[in-house]
Amino acid sequence: MEGFSHLDKEGKAKMVDISEKAPTLRVAVASGTVRMKAETFRKIMGHEIAKGDVLGVSKIAGIMAAKKTSHLIPLCHPINITDVSITFIPLEEESRIEIQAEVKTLDRTGVEMEALTAVSVAALTIYDMCKAVDKEMEIEGIRLLKKSGGRSGTFERKQP
Amino acid sequence: MEGFSHLDKEGKAKMVDISEKAPTLRVAVASGTVRMKAETFRKIMGHEIAKGDVLGVSKIAGIMAAKKTSHLIPLCHPINITDVSITFIPLEEESRIEIQAEVKTLDRTGVEMEALTAVSVAALTIYDMCKAVDKEMEIEGIRLLKKSGGRSGTFERKQP
Amino acid sequence: MEGFSHLDKEGKAKMVDISEKAPTLRVAVASGTVRMKAETFRKIMGHEIAKGDVLGVSKIAGIMAAKKTSHLIPLCHPINITDVSITFIPLEEESRIEIQAEVKTLDRTGVEMEALTAVSVAALTIYDMCKAVDKEMEIEGIRLLKKSGGRSGTFERKQP
Amino acid sequence: MEGFSHLDKEGKAKMVDISEKAPTLRVAVASGTVRMKAETFRKIMGHEIAKGDVLGVSKIAGIMAAKKTSHLIPLCHPINITDVSITFIPLEEESRIEIQAEVKTLDRTGVEMEALTAVSVAALTIYDMCKAVDKEMEIEGIRLLKKSGGRSGTFERKQP
Amino acid sequence: MEGFSHLDKEGKAKMVDISEKAPTLRVAVASGTVRMKAETFRKIMGHEIAKGDVLGVSKIAGIMAAKKTSHLIPLCHPINITDVSITFIPLEEESRIEIQAEVKTLDRTGVEMEALTAVSVAALTIYDMCKAVDKEMEIEGIRLLKKSGGRSGTFERKQP
Amino acid sequence: MEGFSHLDKEGKAKMVDISEKAPTLRVAVASGTVRMKAETFRKIMGHEIAKGDVLGVSKIAGIMAAKKTSHLIPLCHPINITDVSITFIPLEEESRIEIQAEVKTLDRTGVEMEALTAVSVAALTIYDMCKAVDKEMEIEGIRLLKKSGGRSGTFERKQP
Repeated sequence: MEGFSHLDKEGKAKMVDISEKAPTLRVAVASGTVRMKAETFRKIMGHEIAKGDVLGVSKIAGIMAAKKTSHLIPLCHPINITDVSITFIPLEEESRIEIQAEVKTLDRTGVEMEALTAVSVAALTIYDMCKAVDKEMEIEGIRLLKKSGGRSGTFERKQP
Repeated sequence: MEGFSHLDKEGKAKMVDISEKAPTLRVAVASGTVRMKAETFRKIMGHEIAKGDVLGVSKIAGIMAAKKTSHLIPLCHPINITDVSITFIPLEEESRIEIQAEVKTLDRTGVEMEALTAVSVAALTIYDMCKAVDKEMEIEGIRLLKKSGGRSGTFERKQP
Repeated sequence: MEGFSHLDKEGKAKMVDISEKAPTLRVAVASGTVRMKAETFRKIMGHEIAKGDVLGVSKIAGIMAAKKTSHLIPLCHPINITDVSITFIPLEEESRIEIQAEVKTLDRTGVEMEALTAVSVAALTIYDMCKAVDKEMEIEGIRLLKKSGGRSGTFERKQP
Repeated sequence: MEGFSHLDKEGKAKMVDISEKAPTLRVAVASGTVRMKAETFRKIMGHEIAKGDVLGVSKIAGIMAAKKTSHLIPLCHPINITDVSITFIPLEEESRIEIQAEVKTLDRTGVEMEALTAVSVAALTIYDMCKAVDKEMEIEGIRLLKKSGGRSGTFERKQP
Repeated sequence: MEGFSHLDKEGKAKMVDISEKAPTLRVAVASGTVRMKAETFRKIMGHEIAKGDVLGVSKIAGIMAAKKTSHLIPLCHPINITDVSITFIPLEEESRIEIQAEVKTLDRTGVEMEALTAVSVAALTIYDMCKAVDKEMEIEGIRLLKKSGGRSGTFERKQP
Repeated sequence: MEGFSHLDKEGKAKMVDISEKAPTLRVAVASGTVRMKAETFRKIMGHEIAKGDVLGVSKIAGIMAAKKTSHLIPLCHPINITDVSITFIPLEEESRIEIQAEVKTLDRTGVEMEALTAVSVAALTIYDMCKAVDKEMEIEGIRLLKKSGGRSGTFERKQP
């Protein structure tokens, strides 16, 4: 049955065993932006979108999604996050809204995926609430900015 | 209590009532890409990532996420999707993997958010499986390519 | 094995078979109120609660909970709701906030439970966001106000 | 972009950072009651409801809901509860059933919301199982009775 | 990039597109059994298990699991089941409890997986509730007994 | 109200309070097999099933299900598993595929149910992916092989 051992070597899907890791404070910061028409940007800022307060809803969606990360990303460990904080940075000249998410936990593994998931779902929610007026909105630059805690030490993204 | 009527006018959060819409075949296609180091790209293609078959797992994560869309995006209607199909287009020269998702339903509302959610979670899963070797991977260009069915007719994105 | 047939007669847990029912427009309206200290009421109205915009978050929580009803109430059928709309009626003299939820579907069963669940979770969310300043808040009078569609006709609650 | 800083000050939605809190035994007790017609009360007690053993199903629904609290209440932290116990106190003269839920955890935040959610969903389940015979049932008096553990000390509700 | 087209041919994970199928009444019946020590069997029948009414809880777990099938089985379509009915057949001489689940829907695809999932989770719940007294319980013979509706016609298992 | 105290004694549904237990490394290993036609076995091994790479998808489904155990099994405690590892052992002569799942946690209760749930859902997924070619596949012998950690010590199943 060599086919199988081959499959096994390829891994197919393997969770990382974190049983031996120490629980420490782990923090991750991720960001992403939603690019839109200038008019859409003005409507979001001026609360003129019919579906409601866009950034308020986006923030909650991002927070709730962070808590569901291990049910979305197949090999993520379930962890109890101790904080999620989402900030919006409106970039008026470029008609873009930047989303930043910081997630914390005291556990055996990092929270990069939780921060990236929070940003992604917050961005998707902005798209959903504005798609009636702007179907060409685009989600860009979802990336990890920073990560600390754990054996591998602190990571800070060099390029912006 | 004028503060409240003001809140009401702003909407705060309002689902769109689709009770009067007709159930028709609705299709949406979305795409997005994951940009990475050339070495990471080669490892994914060559099945050398320790966590396992990256694109196989990413595809399943995307499909399963499409089915959870209405639990992630607050104002999305629950709908029964009849198909999700995810395709990967490896762009070797740019060390990028493009993800395309097509979603179908026979219902009263479109499936743009389902297609965009499938792409986003598939991309996040690629990040998760490769983050041990490349923390600077970036998710780019998540957007709606096409949408058909329903009263508003067919939408096709002009710029690529 | 008479114990068992007895169990069977008692039912233990029996979903109602709705396969033969016709899909029609079904609407349900439910309400409930949160009673609090006068000071808490003023803080909610004046957006002075540290955790954030209380009613905005409560509304989203109620909408999302309506979509999860069949996963919370064991014998509820999964249905695709076509609208959820939540309204807050501040009753300043009594320091109470009334929550009303209207839910619609085009399906084979009513949406009473969806409306009642939306009200309950919206109320719980108000409690959560204000519990740091008022642990004695109380959720009262969760009830069905109205229900239409389906074989059993229209129900309207007599007592208020 | 002052609109935004204003939004930020209002909070919009902010999880409380519990990273610095100590994990200790936390207990919360909540209660609520379902008021019904005398005949409905007798049917529940006598196991004559067609949908099945009402209180047995209600108890399980309450326990399972407690475990889902952080997915229902947007700003609740995910925590691993170590016990949920639900008790029914039938009040025959008033045709009411009182539900009490006690929840425990060893974590960095309290379990008030878990106990209140358990009571609410247990009550909604009683409504669901009996609504065919009594649509005017009403859920009343959902409140926190007691809470211990954590920095803020023990809380005990004065009024009953 | 032949590796990829190879992957594509292998399929990796492909949902079946059911958009063109007609919604009809579909029924599936599945069964499975839990084999245990004679003493465990007697305790379940006599309600002497400390964790509570074993079969009552098992039934609800099975019903709720049927509703979650599309979130558990990656390529299953989300469908709105119209009925789940679970029956227990105690086989005293063999110290086994047989579980039968019948599921119905009016949709574009069958409900075999829903019926099999209901049986499996009902069986796992019996294990959970009795594992303190009998860790060697074994779940056997989970299989599809019958299936009707849809293009492929009626299936009935020949061997018992 | 003797009916009630009787209900109480029967337990109806009682979570075990694990607040006083010590968090230690707990490991559980479970297994189960899927029996099929010889031709189905060959198709799975040769990657000829139209729905895709059967064992790759089954493995992910099993891992994701292990993380959902406390939402499937009513009285299970939510715990943060630190590892899930699933192995397939093809038994060509008998046309069976054995599934083994090992789950670990550092918590106050064991992970038997998580390992058994992983095996069950992995097996159901194999059924789902192959049911178009073999509806008579059967899931057999789901059982706990081994369990260590915690007050009750190590359990190892005697009969195979």
